[in-house]
Amino acid sequence: MRIRAYERRDAKALVGLVRALARYEKLKPLAPAAARRLVRDAGRRFRVLMAEADGKPVGYAIYFLTYSTFLARPTLYLEDVFVHPDYRRLGLGRLFFAELRREARRERCGRMEWQVLDWNTPAQRFYRKLGAAPLEDWITYRLTLDA
Amino acid sequence: MRIRAYERRDAKALVGLVRALARYEKLKPLAPAAARRLVRDAGRRFRVLMAEADGKPVGYAIYFLTYSTFLARPTLYLEDVFVHPDYRRLGLGRLFFAELRREARRERCGRMEWQVLDWNTPAQRFYRKLGAAPLEDWITYRLTLDA
Repeated sequence: MRIRAYERRDAKALVGLVRALARYEKLKPLAPAAARRLVRDAGRRFRVLMAEADGKPVGYAIYFLTYSTFLARPTLYLEDVFVHPDYRRLGLGRLFFAELRREARRERCGRMEWQVLDWNTPAQRFYRKLGAAPLEDWITYRLTLDA
Repeated sequence: MRIRAYERRDAKALVGLVRALARYEKLKPLAPAAARRLVRDAGRRFRVLMAEADGKPVGYAIYFLTYSTFLARPTLYLEDVFVHPDYRRLGLGRLFFAELRREARRERCGRMEWQVLDWNTPAQRFYRKLGAAPLEDWITYRLTLDA
């Protein structure tokens, strides 16, 4: 059981896991054209870690660096972290966060940030145990652009 | 009155405006070491637009590209947008958003996103008029890292 860097041969497994996360979040999973863009963009527009168990990929984390002008330091932004339901409670989530913290330190980040669905209370309990806290005073605004 | 690219000679004005935004948001303004990092990182870790009126810088926008795995497209993330209070209601905010939308289109982004303080209702009215909406179901978590 380990966390390791993404490699090109993980492309198919990554798409399968991204789709499994969408189902878990009750969101629409990636269409084929989007899956092709995701694979093309992996490692270029975002960074990927894979969780491996029994010699196969069972989870992934996608992250990138943003920036806080308040701290004048980069922020490690975690876009997705997901462990396949059959491989939960083995500690892979903690391993992901340990590796992401190391990466954030290497990059001299002041913070790590991510978003979670309000109904996902097990995840939120886990995040609080890691020392994270919900951002109380800020509201995210989104403008959807035509394709 | 215009929006233009950031240039090195704007460094001092940019730091002044970032500090003015922190005061407006009732947050602690940048310390000198942080101001030096911000100037060093401008154009490298984030992109900057300046608003000019009467031939001088009176506002700025700081943004960067993040990524949506749900859309498999980049997102234009607006970290800061600020117009000095003496130059409000002249349309500089609209000009900033028009330029940012063009940039988002050039980069084939699926979304623009940003955060706003919950008490800042004038800004939120403006954002809704632009067609943006608050993200209802997602909570931002933050983990603060030791320096």
